[in-house]
Amino acid sequence: MAPKLVYRFEEGGENMRSILGGKGAGLAEMTRIGLPVPPGFTISTQACIEYYKQGKKLPPGLWEEVEEHVKGLEKATGKEFGGKTNPLLVSVRSGAVISMPGMMDTILNLGLNEDSVQGLYAQTNDMRFALDCHRRFMQMFGDVVLEVDHDVFEEILVKQREAEKVKFDYEISVEGLKKVIAGYREAVKEKAGIEFPDDPMEQLKMAVEAVFRSWNNERAIVYRKINKIADDLGTAVNVQMMVFGNMGFDSGTGVMFTRNPSTGENVLYGEYLVNAQGEDVVAGIRTPKPIAQMPEDLPNTFEELKRVAAVLEDHYKEMQDMEFTVEHGKLYMLQTRTGKRTAAASLEIARQMVKEGRIDKREAVKRVKPDEVGRMLHRGVDPNAKLEVAGEGLPASPGAAIGTVVFNYKKAEEMGSAGQKVILVRPETKPEDMPGLIYAQGVLTSRGGMTCHAAVVARGMGKPAIVGCDDLHLDIENGKATIGKAEIKEGDVISIDGSTGNVYIGPVPLVEPSVSGAFQEILEWADEIKRLGVKANADTPQDAKKARELGATGIGLCRTEHMFMAADRLPVVQEMIMATSVEERKAALDKLLPMQESDFYEILKAMKGYTVTIRLLDPPLHEFLPSTEELAVKLAEMRYQKASASEIARVENTLRMARELHEANPMMGLRGCRLGILWPEIYEMQARAIFQATARLFKDGFTDVKPEVMIPLVGEANELELNREMVVRIAQEIREESGMDFPIVVGTMIELPRACLTADEIAKHAEFFSFGTNDLTQMTFGYSRDDAEAKFLHMYLEQKILKENPFQVVDRKGVGKLMDMAVKLGRATRPDLVIGICGEHGGDPESVEFCHIVGLDYVSCSPFRVPVARLAAAHAVLKNG
Amino acid sequence: MAPKLVYRFEEGGENMRSILGGKGAGLAEMTRIGLPVPPGFTISTQACIEYYKQGKKLPPGLWEEVEEHVKGLEKATGKEFGGKTNPLLVSVRSGAVISMPGMMDTILNLGLNEDSVQGLYAQTNDMRFALDCHRRFMQMFGDVVLEVDHDVFEEILVKQREAEKVKFDYEISVEGLKKVIAGYREAVKEKAGIEFPDDPMEQLKMAVEAVFRSWNNERAIVYRKINKIADDLGTAVNVQMMVFGNMGFDSGTGVMFTRNPSTGENVLYGEYLVNAQGEDVVAGIRTPKPIAQMPEDLPNTFEELKRVAAVLEDHYKEMQDMEFTVEHGKLYMLQTRTGKRTAAASLEIARQMVKEGRIDKREAVKRVKPDEVGRMLHRGVDPNAKLEVAGEGLPASPGAAIGTVVFNYKKAEEMGSAGQKVILVRPETKPEDMPGLIYAQGVLTSRGGMTCHAAVVARGMGKPAIVGCDDLHLDIENGKATIGKAEIKEGDVISIDGSTGNVYIGPVPLVEPSVSGAFQEILEWADEIKRLGVKANADTPQDAKKARELGATGIGLCRTEHMFMAADRLPVVQEMIMATSVEERKAALDKLLPMQESDFYEILKAMKGYTVTIRLLDPPLHEFLPSTEELAVKLAEMRYQKASASEIARVENTLRMARELHEANPMMGLRGCRLGILWPEIYEMQARAIFQATARLFKDGFTDVKPEVMIPLVGEANELELNREMVVRIAQEIREESGMDFPIVVGTMIELPRACLTADEIAKHAEFFSFGTNDLTQMTFGYSRDDAEAKFLHMYLEQKILKENPFQVVDRKGVGKLMDMAVKLGRATRPDLVIGICGEHGGDPESVEFCHIVGLDYVSCSPFRVPVARLAAAHAVLKNG
Repeated sequence: MAPKLVYRFEEGGENMRSILGGKGAGLAEMTRIGLPVPPGFTISTQACIEYYKQGKKLPPGLWEEVEEHVKGLEKATGKEFGGKTNPLLVSVRSGAVISMPGMMDTILNLGLNEDSVQGLYAQTNDMRFALDCHRRFMQMFGDVVLEVDHDVFEEILVKQREAEKVKFDYEISVEGLKKVIAGYREAVKEKAGIEFPDDPMEQLKMAVEAVFRSWNNERAIVYRKINKIADDLGTAVNVQMMVFGNMGFDSGTGVMFTRNPSTGENVLYGEYLVNAQGEDVVAGIRTPKPIAQMPEDLPNTFEELKRVAAVLEDHYKEMQDMEFTVEHGKLYMLQTRTGKRTAAASLEIARQMVKEGRIDKREAVKRVKPDEVGRMLHRGVDPNAKLEVAGEGLPASPGAAIGTVVFNYKKAEEMGSAGQKVILVRPETKPEDMPGLIYAQGVLTSRGGMTCHAAVVARGMGKPAIVGCDDLHLDIENGKATIGKAEIKEGDVISIDGSTGNVYIGPVPLVEPSVSGAFQEILEWADEIKRLGVKANADTPQDAKKARELGATGIGLCRTEHMFMAADRLPVVQEMIMATSVEERKAALDKLLPMQESDFYEILKAMKGYTVTIRLLDPPLHEFLPSTEELAVKLAEMRYQKASASEIARVENTLRMARELHEANPMMGLRGCRLGILWPEIYEMQARAIFQATARLFKDGFTDVKPEVMIPLVGEANELELNREMVVRIAQEIREESGMDFPIVVGTMIELPRACLTADEIAKHAEFFSFGTNDLTQMTFGYSRDDAEAKFLHMYLEQKILKENPFQVVDRKGVGKLMDMAVKLGRATRPDLVIGICGEHGGDPESVEFCHIVGLDYVSCSPFRVPVARLAAAHAVLKNG
Repeated sequence: MAPKLVYRFEEGGENMRSILGGKGAGLAEMTRIGLPVPPGFTISTQACIEYYKQGKKLPPGLWEEVEEHVKGLEKATGKEFGGKTNPLLVSVRSGAVISMPGMMDTILNLGLNEDSVQGLYAQTNDMRFALDCHRRFMQMFGDVVLEVDHDVFEEILVKQREAEKVKFDYEISVEGLKKVIAGYREAVKEKAGIEFPDDPMEQLKMAVEAVFRSWNNERAIVYRKINKIADDLGTAVNVQMMVFGNMGFDSGTGVMFTRNPSTGENVLYGEYLVNAQGEDVVAGIRTPKPIAQMPEDLPNTFEELKRVAAVLEDHYKEMQDMEFTVEHGKLYMLQTRTGKRTAAASLEIARQMVKEGRIDKREAVKRVKPDEVGRMLHRGVDPNAKLEVAGEGLPASPGAAIGTVVFNYKKAEEMGSAGQKVILVRPETKPEDMPGLIYAQGVLTSRGGMTCHAAVVARGMGKPAIVGCDDLHLDIENGKATIGKAEIKEGDVISIDGSTGNVYIGPVPLVEPSVSGAFQEILEWADEIKRLGVKANADTPQDAKKARELGATGIGLCRTEHMFMAADRLPVVQEMIMATSVEERKAALDKLLPMQESDFYEILKAMKGYTVTIRLLDPPLHEFLPSTEELAVKLAEMRYQKASASEIARVENTLRMARELHEANPMMGLRGCRLGILWPEIYEMQARAIFQATARLFKDGFTDVKPEVMIPLVGEANELELNREMVVRIAQEIREESGMDFPIVVGTMIELPRACLTADEIAKHAEFFSFGTNDLTQMTFGYSRDDAEAKFLHMYLEQKILKENPFQVVDRKGVGKLMDMAVKLGRATRPDLVIGICGEHGGDPESVEFCHIVGLDYVSCSPFRVPVARLAAAHAVLKNG
């Protein structure tokens, strides 16, 4: 026997969502729990999958099954499909497992033909109504199923209106409608090359196939691509007896949420129309009324709806989004599904449902999506402000920013470093624009997709970005541009909202993000559930403070190179690099020591009670010098300008050193612990600064500060052993000098494949591991991040060569395998090894889940991602135990 | 009971080498098989190891054991240690497991004092002889054991010679020798602060401790470091009854090889002195005679020696290097060990021993070291030429070269590319010198060690190099230098021998390497044993031909980028890169197509019968353009020189493109299959060229050509799938066009960690894997090879942070683990997957062994390394089965 492919609503339920689709499962579930649902049946997703397997042919046996169900429906309703007296009319609706736009629209009134239209007239005693139904059905069917252009039908309708000199369709006369129907028949014959089908079963078959076909229409494919929905799920088809909301003033139609989807407030929320079909609302002919007014028009229905809402919430334990129709005072439910809502509403509803005893805290936490929460953690445009949108682009990196327009990175750097707020506006950005991106408040580009350079870099920096803004037309040479109709020039102020993609001329009012109320409460519940610790990456006392406020319990990565870049320090750093002897270098380092010590003092103090993991200098030293190209060009120019010999000599000297330090692939060159081994004075100074600060804090009474020293870029146990010995030696010296008995903890970053492969040996010398997944991803893939994102990664994502950007989401297959290996090998050597992650992945929910699965102890991420990580860590427990 | 630490010669044997050391084991073995050996005993290496464990103290019980053995020796010889009438005198010699210089020299005549010297006189009736023995003993002991400077004793001796007005020590009178002895006693008292010890047991104890101490003297440590000998093996001490070769004309001493160590000819080879001790030979006072003359002087001894040599060769199945002394006509063997020999002799001896039935072919193959053979595969300085060495440096890369001296890379490039032979002479080289290195015949530097940039690059290129040449003093500004006493200037011709480190002024006669005679025969035996195939990396028909001659059975890597670099092609390649549309690019590619096709035609033809694995374009495109810096400087200059607008625009355009292609880390950027995916036209052209050449060869009757297409830098299965589809599509097209049914084989390089980690998925689309261990090593370690070798790798090797340069020897712990994983995962998907290696490691014996162990099918290396790899592959079987 062939497998069952069609299910009566009575046979299904929510647990069959994967074969009935979302809509079908909802209808079945409502039927099952006794809510009023017009009878019908669902053709399963399996039928659609088979349809494609058979090369776009209905699977054998399907149609016989459908025919039987139609008979069953006739029996249940006492109506006849296409009948002359009491005709059964149906709606046909697509219904995928995951709701998605772009698929075939609803077809209403299917089953109408010259015969049954008479039956409909007989039932309603309203010929105009019956004919209008027929006309609408033909139009929908012709457009959607027969693929005759929508305009063809519209034109016939317009002509008839003009002939009768009326304004609206509903003013067309009975005779006129008959002419329209005749016109439609002609048009279909001409355009589609077939007679319009009048046999109801044929209509149904064609509609079902059209639904199946629509699964692979262009819009649906694009939607699935963007939303990462598998292409082989297929869609179900729902066939349901028609009910009519336009049968008089005791009839109506509407949509409703069980709670306010913007705020989460526990009140019915939605709108309805009396004597109307859903289509009328869509057509915009009449304005629907808010549901709060319903007691005036349809008091009984309102009470019934309240009851249904309560039943559904009790049943689903979730806020529902419902469609309904009232036919002669009788309420019919046409759909129910979990209601979409704002992040704020999501939090509020979850909190309330816990208070109401509907769900427990675990469920409440589960309901709140980490990504949703992420969007709340940016400054946003005040939702209450009335604003005019000048243009729209892709919302590439969330948050809002206001600034002066600049068209090139040099200007951005110049103005930005002077403390001015600028927005970098470019056709697109490239790695050379980095200085501009660093100093800009946000970025706006006319080209590029969600993974273009500007988008990726901005997300990485947590800066607002809008890319691919078609409304933006640049004329950079003349320092101007247009956004939509507005002209802007360099120096004008604009505002961008990276969460929505909206661009505004001039400044707009902003609101600051905050973690309070329901947000705060749910995060606390998440903390009770999660196993992973959540720390923050922070390089300054300000960041450390902010991270603490957002719930970070420690600093997982404090980068010391940022401290070297400050304007008052860079000259000293350059002095250190240009030193021609160890003595000269030490002299420069001696100047840096008190600066670093005071940095560490403040950060450790701000994080007292928690660990602060300080990474010793990581980047190659040439990053602190001008580029060789810049210097070489300068030199060539100076010679032509007849500069003094001593000036030339000075630049020559810098160029010589820059060349000496120059590397073909600096990412894989003299950096990290390699520096520490070649130029030990630098790490020694840093170790001294850390422990002198610690000793001073102990003396000042802060005995709960917990510094940890992290050695970067270890690939071989011996590297760590050497550096560890140095750190411990210096710490011991300072312990003796100061008499303070502070802790000495040394660990390493695991960011090279070889570190993972030899983690058992490395663990001998490490008290903790911290995965540097940025570098680990670079080395595992052989991708230089900047180059890859600028050159080919966008294409890899577009062509689905890679499913995710591995710099955003941990690549479980490759990088993850290495991480898993490192955890196992490391713990085999040292069972109490503390293991965390401090790459940017630490703030990505999928990656946090992976960290949970492989058994890490903590994740560390940007301060503003801390709440996201807390929630994701709880979700990881809820999903994986 | 304490473990036994001392062994009589009778108790030991060759199988106890690890505890008796090489010398002790040889003496024991000779004793065991009945050869005449003066009696004695060996203090084991274990005693030395214990000595260091105890903090440089003799282990408990050792001395009691030694005392017992001395008593045993007295009993066996009937002599008394330090006795007045028939004194037992002994020699004390160090003897490590692996023979090494730098340790304590022999001490002869130990046991002499004022008493026993009388006994010696009594025995020999020669007071001068007895006193001279005493004097020599004191001098050796004072120098080596008491660490009194050698010159102190020499001065006393000189004074006595002057006082007696004689020229040689042996002319000093008996009274004079007594004065000398008295003087030595004084000197020791003054310099060492102790009385010269006269108690024989005390002398012995001090000598033994001195041997132990010498294990860790500076020279020994350096030697072990260079030769990778473990520091904890310890040395044994041999104590043996003295025999005297200087007791008249029926006495003598000598050293002898059982065969000629230069040529391998089967004749006794060595030298001897009548009436002399070994010391006299060393001192250079008398010139020893060749062993061939011995029948004249000591006919019986010669016959006895022939017998001993035969016994030893029969016993050891190896050519022996022996020391002997004849005392009053009686032959005593003092040492035997496997004789050192030239590579040529090694091959010849192994071949002969097989013919003689002494060893089998497997053993013969085992005897020949792959590295040894490697040295034979370079052009060398004619060993028969009489030449004057001008200076010496480290032999960094073997082979000899003759060329004109140039002092900078630009000149080297200029002259070299014009076809002149040049030697690049620099203080040291850096990555920027690469163009010069490419065009030079060889390189000579005054600084650097065996792993400096010049050394590493030259070895990689198979070019002769001498580095760290202290005799070279450069005055580059004035275009001159001195080598030893000779002055050279730019334009002079010099010759360098990278196998010996010798520098010569002017040209020297060279000999070409060849594989013939014993070499050829043994390689054939190796081929019978080995399991791994050996292919070559070759990019030209010439290289392919050479590789075939050297025994390669295929080309494992044919790089196509070298074909792009040729002078007539580079402009077309640049045209292709600068193209502003796909059409323009295709037009340029159309010009390249016939050139590539003819390359492939010739190479495939040269390798007919074997596979030729052709790698599609790998390097980033900017490698084919001038650098941005070069262009930017040029542009700045042109502007000042008021160049025409069109010229400026042209350079600007090139600069713009170079900038666009510029990457921060090109090694990890847009290269390999990433290029093939972004600019598919390029790979399509290459695939077309390969298969058009194949079709043409088939038409021309060469139906046994076997091209394989290799996609580089795959990190994700989808990349390979895409490219594979393209290659197969084009091959099918050409099959149809031509009607030729040639094979289509597509595989990939495994050179990224992620490729290893996901090899199961990649294998779905690959018929073969080829490990690109150069890149795999770079990514696994996070080392950019050029940068690492220029900046820090030498220090890592010096400090033993890494035991080996991972770019020379496969890093088994890290890279090897990934390789093993890839092999297992790949074969799990596709059991018949062919797996090879084409990184430079394919020619390194240790790495070849690893490839055998993990189950690869073949290795591929430079043509001139093919014989080395063949031998190494056989060794891998012999060692691992």
